[in-house]
Amino acid sequence: MNQSSPIPDHRPQVVIIGGGFGGLAAARELADAPVDVTVLDRRNYHLFQPLLYQVATAALSPSEIAWPIRHLLRRQANASVLLAEATGIDLEAGCVRTTAGDQPFDYLVVATGAAHSYFGHPEWAEHAPGLKSIEDATAIRRRVLSAFEQAENAPAGEREGLLTFVIVGGGPTGVEMAGAVAELARDALARDFRNVDPREAKVVLVEAGERILAAFPESLAAYAARMLERLGVTVMTRTAVTGCGPDGAQVGERHLASRTIIWAAGVAASPLAAELAGPHDRAGRAVVAEDLSLQGHPNVFVVGDAAAVNGRGGVVVPGIAPAAKQAGRHAARVIEAQVRGRAPPGAFHYRHAGDLATIGRSAAVVRFDGFRLTGWLGWVFWGLAHIYFLIGLRNRVAVALDWSWSWLTRQRHVRLIIG
Amino acid sequence: MNQSSPIPDHRPQVVIIGGGFGGLAAARELADAPVDVTVLDRRNYHLFQPLLYQVATAALSPSEIAWPIRHLLRRQANASVLLAEATGIDLEAGCVRTTAGDQPFDYLVVATGAAHSYFGHPEWAEHAPGLKSIEDATAIRRRVLSAFEQAENAPAGEREGLLTFVIVGGGPTGVEMAGAVAELARDALARDFRNVDPREAKVVLVEAGERILAAFPESLAAYAARMLERLGVTVMTRTAVTGCGPDGAQVGERHLASRTIIWAAGVAASPLAAELAGPHDRAGRAVVAEDLSLQGHPNVFVVGDAAAVNGRGGVVVPGIAPAAKQAGRHAARVIEAQVRGRAPPGAFHYRHAGDLATIGRSAAVVRFDGFRLTGWLGWVFWGLAHIYFLIGLRNRVAVALDWSWSWLTRQRHVRLIIG
Repeated sequence: MNQSSPIPDHRPQVVIIGGGFGGLAAARELADAPVDVTVLDRRNYHLFQPLLYQVATAALSPSEIAWPIRHLLRRQANASVLLAEATGIDLEAGCVRTTAGDQPFDYLVVATGAAHSYFGHPEWAEHAPGLKSIEDATAIRRRVLSAFEQAENAPAGEREGLLTFVIVGGGPTGVEMAGAVAELARDALARDFRNVDPREAKVVLVEAGERILAAFPESLAAYAARMLERLGVTVMTRTAVTGCGPDGAQVGERHLASRTIIWAAGVAASPLAAELAGPHDRAGRAVVAEDLSLQGHPNVFVVGDAAAVNGRGGVVVPGIAPAAKQAGRHAARVIEAQVRGRAPPGAFHYRHAGDLATIGRSAAVVRFDGFRLTGWLGWVFWGLAHIYFLIGLRNRVAVALDWSWSWLTRQRHVRLIIG
Repeated sequence: MNQSSPIPDHRPQVVIIGGGFGGLAAARELADAPVDVTVLDRRNYHLFQPLLYQVATAALSPSEIAWPIRHLLRRQANASVLLAEATGIDLEAGCVRTTAGDQPFDYLVVATGAAHSYFGHPEWAEHAPGLKSIEDATAIRRRVLSAFEQAENAPAGEREGLLTFVIVGGGPTGVEMAGAVAELARDALARDFRNVDPREAKVVLVEAGERILAAFPESLAAYAARMLERLGVTVMTRTAVTGCGPDGAQVGERHLASRTIIWAAGVAASPLAAELAGPHDRAGRAVVAEDLSLQGHPNVFVVGDAAAVNGRGGVVVPGIAPAAKQAGRHAARVIEAQVRGRAPPGAFHYRHAGDLATIGRSAAVVRFDGFRLTGWLGWVFWGLAHIYFLIGLRNRVAVALDWSWSWLTRQRHVRLIIG
């Protein structure tokens, strides 16, 4: 805090729950506003979730995609960071209940993100972990690597289940995960075992809808499916997963023996957002007004995956990082306008820049307004875009070097079974 | 396995328990011997323990100092790797009991390393974790970083205990740890908090003996103590720690309020080594014959921290990486000579190359036979030596870049509270 200037009687207190893309963008946008900002998170780091699947598949270290929130905001004098879990929101009292005591607010930004949804089957979670946190990623890494280790020493009858990997959900995360697991088996692990050949591992990508990558143009989705199959991935569309257990998954009509199921299908708003007053969509996201405020609470905003935002023409804003960032900045601008007594910036307009997904080595699909890319060019574009959006020179250099090294050697350097 | 040449009726089976410095060196030395080698480890990776304290203090990622044992031995046709825990050794039956079934052996190398010793107070372990595994290192990192987070939000009366770090044991690990914690607080964290000043953190290094770094020449130890004090570390020698609890440590006559105690004092042989037949030293290490074999079992060898080796003149071989490597290679040579019916290589002669410890940024102490170094030159030598001994080009480049980056920016890039 700036100690040389007198502190006015009451500077408006802005509490931001969540230091993800939305929360961090809101905090930064308020840097010059006459408010005190508190960013509350149960983790001490901001996580670059789009690359989390690379941690899960041994290509990147957690530290390459995570930064202490405190460090990112160290130069912003009006911001402080509190490592604590929000346990409830009292809208009437204007107070967030946290594990580190109550945090009163004049303005609140709820940016708590999403959790997995198992479509009413929480008991599947144990057998089909999802990918939202670093702990999730290292747990999946442990499962995948351990499956090969166990297969090496298992009787022949058990090997098939150990070497079958089922990925549920054909969105970008599922596609990237399936490609990465297939490459891990085909390249990095290929020559390291004596009794099993990792190249015989079976990777199955299951999607309930018509096709994978539903948000992408059909031609790009078809390209992605072809490239996945070239990597040895079995792509099953129009197929629902109706059960997950310790020995495998019920995939459509048949039971697929598998000791490693990865969940990349359902997403639900975090419990805190789901418990907010007012209407919610089916995934539990809080339905917000066009300025992102909560109905009847013009000082409370919900952004990112926690919010259901109906854009123009009824299009739901997608649950991706650029959307969360834009929403966080917009909420901050509304707050600043209110504090300064200026005219409000009005409705939130989401600008969709494009969609990207990588399938593997030298293969990605990219759709930007002006152009589409596939293959090697798409892959380079995908890589550069992700490096650009990483925070900090150090991580950009580290990730670029790791990717170059992986590309040259086909190795994955984080093959650690930990925990 | 080489499938093109016929496998003889019985190739001698060599089982190596432990993929650390000693076990890995033994396995590699047997590459051309007419034996089958099985390396058994409960971890899937070989760990470069000398830099583990840098993982604990947020300077390096675990993956930079760990490599899959399987990958390191992938080109050695006569070696296989088994991820399993050895639960017992039946010397009479010639069999190692493991969590993945029995492993019969003709020759056995026990390279199980060391665990912490709390001098008969195992209840201290919970409050004063030690540093032997990656999990230990990330747990200490979590404790150290969490202490600052908690202090930021704690009432003034609790801050002192939260910002006091006690390191027990003035050997190289304790010295390096104390210096690294002090630098973390003074540099990397300095400007990131609002309510506390990490530079006021108290780091106390407690050593029961006459002086720190007992294995080093007195002048180097005195230099290290001066440099530690310049970093703000309080060095207490001739002071025993007689208690560790949740609120602090009993240090000599007084109780030091501290929420973070790190144990770098006692070392004990792993339980498996301690349970081997025959005599043991006070730390539970198996006393071995001069060729490193177990008394009465010329086909069983104990190397590294698991063994008590009396060198010429009764000097005990130190528990450091070069000693373990040399012993592992020697055991392998004895085995190969026995298998080939050659004359045995005789007694193990340990060659002590030198001692190194770093205190912090641009300060280290180095003693090699021919010379001694301190200060910047010692630090560069220390860094180059450690990079040289790392395995693989990728990790050498990554660690060199991380150190350069840390040196330039005074930052630590792995400030993650995980788990």
